[in-house]
Amino acid sequence: MNRRQERPRMKSTATSKTIRQVLGPLTKAIEPALAAALGGKCVPAPLAQAMRYAALDGGKRLRPAMVLLSAAAAADRVDWRMDPMPAAVAVELVHCYSLVHDDLPAMDDDSLRRGRATCHVKFGQAMAILAGDALLTRAFEVLAQAPGDKTIIAELIAELAGGGGPAGMIAGQVADMALCQVPDGEPGRRYIHMRKTAALIRAAVRMGAICAGADGAAIEALTMFAEKVGLAFQIADDVLDATLPAEVLGKTPGKDAQSGKRTYATELPVEQARRQAERLTAEACEALEPLGERAGNLKTLAVSLVRRDR
Amino acid sequence: MNRRQERPRMKSTATSKTIRQVLGPLTKAIEPALAAALGGKCVPAPLAQAMRYAALDGGKRLRPAMVLLSAAAAADRVDWRMDPMPAAVAVELVHCYSLVHDDLPAMDDDSLRRGRATCHVKFGQAMAILAGDALLTRAFEVLAQAPGDKTIIAELIAELAGGGGPAGMIAGQVADMALCQVPDGEPGRRYIHMRKTAALIRAAVRMGAICAGADGAAIEALTMFAEKVGLAFQIADDVLDATLPAEVLGKTPGKDAQSGKRTYATELPVEQARRQAERLTAEACEALEPLGERAGNLKTLAVSLVRRDR
Repeated sequence: MNRRQERPRMKSTATSKTIRQVLGPLTKAIEPALAAALGGKCVPAPLAQAMRYAALDGGKRLRPAMVLLSAAAAADRVDWRMDPMPAAVAVELVHCYSLVHDDLPAMDDDSLRRGRATCHVKFGQAMAILAGDALLTRAFEVLAQAPGDKTIIAELIAELAGGGGPAGMIAGQVADMALCQVPDGEPGRRYIHMRKTAALIRAAVRMGAICAGADGAAIEALTMFAEKVGLAFQIADDVLDATLPAEVLGKTPGKDAQSGKRTYATELPVEQARRQAERLTAEACEALEPLGERAGNLKTLAVSLVRRDR
Repeated sequence: MNRRQERPRMKSTATSKTIRQVLGPLTKAIEPALAAALGGKCVPAPLAQAMRYAALDGGKRLRPAMVLLSAAAAADRVDWRMDPMPAAVAVELVHCYSLVHDDLPAMDDDSLRRGRATCHVKFGQAMAILAGDALLTRAFEVLAQAPGDKTIIAELIAELAGGGGPAGMIAGQVADMALCQVPDGEPGRRYIHMRKTAALIRAAVRMGAICAGADGAAIEALTMFAEKVGLAFQIADDVLDATLPAEVLGKTPGKDAQSGKRTYATELPVEQARRQAERLTAEACEALEPLGERAGNLKTLAVSLVRRDR
């Protein structure tokens, strides 16, 4: 039996859809908003080109979708306190900057991303560093300039900076690069993944909840969901890295094992990693029970994430 | 006659003080606030160390001083709308991140900064990239979490992101690295310097004015001051790079000429560059006339900047 096809079964009340079915309609709204955020007219043309290359035409838009679906899970649209789209755009800009910097030769040294040359291969290292810096800076500018209650906006900025910052995503990257000490076994793997991937997904989900005006209990439920889904998503990513060829993966496969990365697929049998991702996803969906039917799409997205085949 | 000692005369009503006399008292307030912003407890120790190395123990703290003196120039302290110290800290964090990234081998490839090894020489390139990213992210977090009116805070964040972003400082770095086309002669030099250096100084001064609750006319006067001082400061820096030895400069001297950088000291005779810096400073001080005596310290700082000998 081919381990690339075998999948454990998971009980879930969520509808079974592929990740593209779930994200497709959301992406149609996200792409133009993202493109509009990268249309600054006083930006030097080659910099603008590198920023757009890094952020447009590719990517699942998972994090912005999480912002939008979390807002929908927390409250009816008419009750939202502000439009969650600026938060969705900002979190994707942070994600895209992190990919550009992570791919640099001094970091993961990747030449393939989303099926094409990485930013530094296409534009040179200096431009890639600067384009990453620019995407990160622009993320906060988008939020600061968004229409809406400035108290909410300050909360969103703090949330994004926390998730993407030195105690969140950057801490994860430091740990992933073995630049700091991390415990052996599951605690160490969890430390890395909770920060490298889950921290920004957590911020995305909480930003959606904040835009919707969610109460404390709803924010708590969504936070627990996000942490579990974020971890499950990264485990699924590790499994794909270990099992897929480049033409399907869209980036260099098997890099984790080659570079001695600590992942769920390099440190555990692939099937065990898969089961853990499925279990975490089921727990994530359970955490959303208090939110009722409004959380349906968010659950469906979570399930599709661990079942994706690329 | 030694060109390193000869200085043109400048008429100014500002008191004549050395830059250290002007900045000393301000620095005493800025340093602890900056250190406090870098004390995050959930940050991996080596990352926190690299961030502190890049941001503490060195630097003139010119930009945060500009924030504080601009607030003082715009209104009496009792009338300030919010404490300008978080803005002062945030702008310095952005400045420090930019130095770390600019020093990287793929950028200016500098090994000496503020009299000691640059961040990537000390901690490696990967950590330097991540520490820079972390300082930038933290800058916006500091502002978002600052006590005060959130409408003002959103304005401050937009101002900082604008000055430090892809139409501001990053555009300047792109131009400085010859990664985009820039006109020949004075327009090109001005394009580079206005963005590379003046954009963040402009943001610093405007942030101080915003904290003070300055009216439109005062903000306009301070903005004109900042643009001229920012340009004058970078010209003075170019002159020092061309004329000082490493032990005084604290960084590798003569790099601009060696690396073919377009500066006022590589494209103009040094004396002409000096005179231009003095003229811009005089114009900057004139722009502050409408603000009266409250602007005295800001003028004194401006004058000390072009007269500094390191």
